[in-house]
Amino acid sequence: MRDDDPVRSWWGWGWEDQALTDAECVAFGSMIPGLADTPLPSPSIGDVVLPSPRVSAPTTLAEILTDDPAARASHARGKAYRDVIRALHGDVGAAPDLVARPATEADVVAVLDWASEADVAVVPYGGGSSVVGGVECDGDGHAGVVTLDLSAMDRVLEIDTISRAARIQAGVLGPALEDQLRPADLTLRHFPQSFEFSSLGGWIATRAGGHYATLHTHIDDFVESVRVVTPIGTSESWRLPGSGAGPSPDRLFLGSEGTLGVITEAWMRLQDRPAHRRSTTVTFTSTTDAMAAVRAIAQSGLHPANCRLLDPGEAALSGAGSGAAWVLVLGVESAHHPVDATLALLVDIARGHDGTPADPAPPTTAEAPTRDRAAEAWRSTFLRMPYLRDGLARMSAISETFETATTWDRVEALYEDVRAAVGDAVRTVTGTDGLVTCRFTHVYPDGAAPYFTVIGAARRGSELAMWDEIKAASMEVLTRHRATVTHHHAVGRDHRPGYDRQRPDPFAAALVATKRALDPKGILNPGVLVDP
Amino acid sequence: MRDDDPVRSWWGWGWEDQALTDAECVAFGSMIPGLADTPLPSPSIGDVVLPSPRVSAPTTLAEILTDDPAARASHARGKAYRDVIRALHGDVGAAPDLVARPATEADVVAVLDWASEADVAVVPYGGGSSVVGGVECDGDGHAGVVTLDLSAMDRVLEIDTISRAARIQAGVLGPALEDQLRPADLTLRHFPQSFEFSSLGGWIATRAGGHYATLHTHIDDFVESVRVVTPIGTSESWRLPGSGAGPSPDRLFLGSEGTLGVITEAWMRLQDRPAHRRSTTVTFTSTTDAMAAVRAIAQSGLHPANCRLLDPGEAALSGAGSGAAWVLVLGVESAHHPVDATLALLVDIARGHDGTPADPAPPTTAEAPTRDRAAEAWRSTFLRMPYLRDGLARMSAISETFETATTWDRVEALYEDVRAAVGDAVRTVTGTDGLVTCRFTHVYPDGAAPYFTVIGAARRGSELAMWDEIKAASMEVLTRHRATVTHHHAVGRDHRPGYDRQRPDPFAAALVATKRALDPKGILNPGVLVDP
Repeated sequence: MRDDDPVRSWWGWGWEDQALTDAECVAFGSMIPGLADTPLPSPSIGDVVLPSPRVSAPTTLAEILTDDPAARASHARGKAYRDVIRALHGDVGAAPDLVARPATEADVVAVLDWASEADVAVVPYGGGSSVVGGVECDGDGHAGVVTLDLSAMDRVLEIDTISRAARIQAGVLGPALEDQLRPADLTLRHFPQSFEFSSLGGWIATRAGGHYATLHTHIDDFVESVRVVTPIGTSESWRLPGSGAGPSPDRLFLGSEGTLGVITEAWMRLQDRPAHRRSTTVTFTSTTDAMAAVRAIAQSGLHPANCRLLDPGEAALSGAGSGAAWVLVLGVESAHHPVDATLALLVDIARGHDGTPADPAPPTTAEAPTRDRAAEAWRSTFLRMPYLRDGLARMSAISETFETATTWDRVEALYEDVRAAVGDAVRTVTGTDGLVTCRFTHVYPDGAAPYFTVIGAARRGSELAMWDEIKAASMEVLTRHRATVTHHHAVGRDHRPGYDRQRPDPFAAALVATKRALDPKGILNPGVLVDP
Repeated sequence: MRDDDPVRSWWGWGWEDQALTDAECVAFGSMIPGLADTPLPSPSIGDVVLPSPRVSAPTTLAEILTDDPAARASHARGKAYRDVIRALHGDVGAAPDLVARPATEADVVAVLDWASEADVAVVPYGGGSSVVGGVECDGDGHAGVVTLDLSAMDRVLEIDTISRAARIQAGVLGPALEDQLRPADLTLRHFPQSFEFSSLGGWIATRAGGHYATLHTHIDDFVESVRVVTPIGTSESWRLPGSGAGPSPDRLFLGSEGTLGVITEAWMRLQDRPAHRRSTTVTFTSTTDAMAAVRAIAQSGLHPANCRLLDPGEAALSGAGSGAAWVLVLGVESAHHPVDATLALLVDIARGHDGTPADPAPPTTAEAPTRDRAAEAWRSTFLRMPYLRDGLARMSAISETFETATTWDRVEALYEDVRAAVGDAVRTVTGTDGLVTCRFTHVYPDGAAPYFTVIGAARRGSELAMWDEIKAASMEVLTRHRATVTHHHAVGRDHRPGYDRQRPDPFAAALVATKRALDPKGILNPGVLVDP
């Protein structure tokens, strides 16, 4: 690393040099009534005091395992609001005793073998961007905890340009992955908000949602085969474009969140880089019209790449609208053929539901894809949002998001009920009105995935307890509607109560049995998905 | 049933009155050198002698269970060539001791409870169209066998026109399902070759392939939620358009082939009926060009509904071509917008790979979708093929199919190797040249699903042994290429050897553990997917 390379924040989102300054925190915080006047200081890793490690590395693994306090502290948690606010208050919590950095799959096997033998819990770790408590583990009931950081396994091993697929190591983060595919003119096109700071293995383990608002919403469909080191052996499915041979092996590991094995590599389906892109926005004054338009689009078979519907509050928050209207961000792309006609059909649908299209964007070229101003504003805020959240947290705001999905027959009622219930919770808990805004991140022929942002003023020192109460209210309203407790953020430790209600009992029994079969000592990410 | 209602064949495919006459068998058989001169007689159910049932129905289930010999004989097997040829030789094999016809889910629960208690094996049965030994069970190690025929549970219970989804009982066959959806102007559009004789529950349990040659190739993607009675309780997933909450519960039951529970109903995603349809054919003289064209189409993002590539032999067999060229059948459809431009783009791709498009078809209307003559010939033969197979079987021909899928980098080599290896096997086993033809039934951006037809002249009385040897050769070449042992016909009992090679060992351990958890007595379809 050169001195001028950017440095990852150990406690907050992303790059240290992208974080808000104190002055920016104050300025941004002043937009929310009731916040503190001064920001909590950014915590320094030198101030963190950790308990001594409960276990030590065997000499055979000395090259792979470290008990360096900075490594331990920076792997203690993910990047949820809960994690940030605790770090700001000096609470690093149950940091792992050791951090492993395997360079090869053999290293992963060696760590699992040792951990099985020594009864040490193992937390698989990609980019560390979990927002659901997916990578924190107190190790209760075990001799200790090792976090298995796969970031050194970051190479594209093989590219099959005929089938448009690549064999890729699980630890690679988004940008490095795309960099290695670019010479072959191919792309995975999986761009979650965490793209820079999350890994292929993490995406697969958590069924991450990505670039496409329709059709290929999750990483699931791009997995051609997956290789997983489990405590009882290595599982590798055949590379198959499609199969009907029994329940899909890959679908068992998709969403397994590090509880059944460590994903070490996968063959991923790729795409040609888009040569044609068009984008525009449409505004709606009526909630019902906006949702009906998006539903008609989702059911049209036109499959837009982008179809983000922002409610008025969300549009205002992201600078994509005035706050008086719903804003629909539409985008179409193709590597193969012009997409102007498709965009026109989409806009026609929206117009048929009383939508007002923006002025037409200038014509497209491959080098400079056109987006209109509102779409551009939304995109830039989208990537900046987690940094803003950290700035608000420093001002002792509550600032967090949660997402769900439900069928169209319930979407509008769910939207209204969540806004009411979570709004009430914010008022009750904080004593002041907060913001509860919503966008649809992904839409389906049979439903939508609403994504909510909650901002409120907390009492300094009580932020965590206050947020936990609001979060419980959100989970109650989601499960009452039988809307999923998570559409693409995963279950982790934070969603377990709702997940246990959502998951059918016989499937829970199947998952417990599977866990026992693959991880007989129960060392893998204990507490996630099933009880330790 | 009225006297003039068509009657299902108890031993062969489909309707009795659609079967070939003796004269037709002779005429059709004369096209294959080396066959018998006279057809084996159609077996009569009255001649079948079954062993006495090993178990009898408890009085509480007397209304549901029967030991009627005709019911037992007609549920003894599926409809594979192996099944037909054995029936023609008077071998009905291990017929179930009892046949259950539950009218309600409570009946299913009652049968499973009794069977668990009495240690009776239970074979879930939809339309009985298995071609992989999926519904035959000798009950070894159990007190007896009951076949659980779900055909009385055949109703669409609820239609959600907003989300375009319906709650449907698992026993409904294709035509009755579509009949019940038609008043709502909706369709499942799942049209496997067995459409008339296979059930929703069967499609889900076997991951059936359907109407769409691209994108939505299997029933999997149309399952919104599924309800399954297992011996330890009933599993019902929430209706969700998308979710990231742990491994998908539905994907565990998709492909479970009756081994983990009895699917009783499902919420299925539906579609508007297409208003715009276009279809055409393109011919290619070169294998490499034909495959390259189809690959380019599959990777174009144009998602044709039909994209069936017939090799020269298959084209000749189905009357879609002269036998001198490859024939590509292309079809596009939409409920929403005209598809002429899409078809033109597809034809352009084919032309770019030296394809020769047929003369343009007349313009489309919703009432009379246009197909050109070759496409029409192919479609009509497609539906007629299983009856022809039975006719050939009566002439003591070998006549069977198998399907697979592999990535594009291996497709052409696999095609050539299968034709060579299976062709050799036919010559070695039968002493004469046979036919080994191929079509691609479904194509993907990363690969294709070749479907092979094998026709040869067997020695009367040795048909089964000869076919089994040829089948073993086919499975050897598929597994050597790591091509799936089944793309959409399921594993059943016939594909177990290849499936065991294909399935990763840790996944096998997970499946065994799941089976033990959900079906502790091991009564459900023993021998399928996992060992009893």
